[in-house]
Amino acid sequence: MHVVKTIESVRRSVAGARRKGGTVALVPTMGSLHAGHASLMAAAVRRYDYTVVSIFVNPTQFGPQEDMDDYPRPFESDCALCHELGVDLVFAPTAQQMYTQESSTWVQVVGLTDVLCGRSRPDHFRGVTTVCTKLFNIVAPDVAFFGQKDAQQALVIKRMVRDLNMPLAIEVCPTIREPDGLAISSRNQYLDPEQRREAARLYQTLQTCQIQIAQGRRSAAALIASMRDELQQIPRAKIDYVSIVDGETLIPVEEVRGRLLIALAVQIGPARLIDNILVDLGPS
Amino acid sequence: MHVVKTIESVRRSVAGARRKGGTVALVPTMGSLHAGHASLMAAAVRRYDYTVVSIFVNPTQFGPQEDMDDYPRPFESDCALCHELGVDLVFAPTAQQMYTQESSTWVQVVGLTDVLCGRSRPDHFRGVTTVCTKLFNIVAPDVAFFGQKDAQQALVIKRMVRDLNMPLAIEVCPTIREPDGLAISSRNQYLDPEQRREAARLYQTLQTCQIQIAQGRRSAAALIASMRDELQQIPRAKIDYVSIVDGETLIPVEEVRGRLLIALAVQIGPARLIDNILVDLGPS
Repeated sequence: MHVVKTIESVRRSVAGARRKGGTVALVPTMGSLHAGHASLMAAAVRRYDYTVVSIFVNPTQFGPQEDMDDYPRPFESDCALCHELGVDLVFAPTAQQMYTQESSTWVQVVGLTDVLCGRSRPDHFRGVTTVCTKLFNIVAPDVAFFGQKDAQQALVIKRMVRDLNMPLAIEVCPTIREPDGLAISSRNQYLDPEQRREAARLYQTLQTCQIQIAQGRRSAAALIASMRDELQQIPRAKIDYVSIVDGETLIPVEEVRGRLLIALAVQIGPARLIDNILVDLGPS
Repeated sequence: MHVVKTIESVRRSVAGARRKGGTVALVPTMGSLHAGHASLMAAAVRRYDYTVVSIFVNPTQFGPQEDMDDYPRPFESDCALCHELGVDLVFAPTAQQMYTQESSTWVQVVGLTDVLCGRSRPDHFRGVTTVCTKLFNIVAPDVAFFGQKDAQQALVIKRMVRDLNMPLAIEVCPTIREPDGLAISSRNQYLDPEQRREAARLYQTLQTCQIQIAQGRRSAAALIASMRDELQQIPRAKIDYVSIVDGETLIPVEEVRGRLLIALAVQIGPARLIDNILVDLGPS
């Protein structure tokens, strides 16, 4: 496995793999790799000839009050995990390498990015789509892997790729969870033991909603009210949003039918946690 | 020469050229091809193995009050010119092919696009950068050709390619002019004979300015005032802007030095005409 820091090195390595006729996969990450990332990397390694993992804490997707500086950067153990899983190349650029001084171009998906996480993180998705465009242009992969845990991000990236005719496929892999159901996230390590126990109730709330739907409840407003009630019982939890939206357009629904995303964001202590489930009730 | 209308056909044709080891050039146009386009196409054909010309009147770069519907579309003579010049492929998509119903992704270069033409055409460059990104992703060329006549467009595209790490080079070719100096443009055909004669005074004004600089005048304000005086003598001409700006950043200068763009936009009858010259006074 090679670890490179410059754009030129990545291009050279990928061109070498291409010359041998290989297919190329990219797993874009901010490092602090966990079992969720591992599932993406393992899928890429299994199905493609040459797997690139990018590790870059992208400044343009953090708001001014967010955790950019505190974001964990355990670079050596990240590389060890990549190596263990059979990754071919780790691309770990500096911010200077990725953004020159007068960088002034943005890629923006409108509409899809105004709702859910986009409401409380106004420039977040613009940073994500811009850095992903750059990584796609640098690596030129056949496919890029994303996790369903960041459901809105995955939809935004898929829309961008389709709208801009980017020549790659997007694969979205299932959310990986702790034994108690908590979606695995780099930000879970911000939690103290009590907060960590409370955090498991996010997924339990989603599961309760799913059961209520299976039992025939169809009013989105009633289901959301019931989820909010459940979340408000978590001491010191601060709800950002609880939403039931169309699974493609992210437009809120009134009545539960078709393919839906049930998504929530809750601040627990120092960590803003997100989770979601997809519910498919068949043709609406 | 092939003429194709679908994205899949372009990709197939370009992939065929690539398999033979050929280099690929793209000349993006809105059709209504003239000697300016011909110079770009001839340069591409001469220096690259496979030349693609796109012909697409891009709706997203026209404002609501602009000439989108009236824009000339002489498709057969355009194709004949491409054929004559040795172009390999003409890509002439429909608007439906290029923009699906819910297309909602934009590529935007901030700063550079707020000045000069961007002031009176607020969403113009966003449309240009978005459609060029799409064309670059569809054709995947080694190089794309643009004309210096649209100086701001060329700078914006170069900035976008650099900022987003797009894997292609941008070539900017000199403005082609009529014998009386008028920069050749598809919109010149909107002019009646008298307006056409008056239009030649745009380039004469730029040349006068260049002479004054050669004579030692250095105040941008005085040079601009003198150009405005000269343009105001054209009956029925309406000045949009007359600017002296840095040749890279497009920031207005106070004193003439370094590498500068002297640019103007003037409405003459039904046509909004633009022209510019680059002046290089050496290291500033």
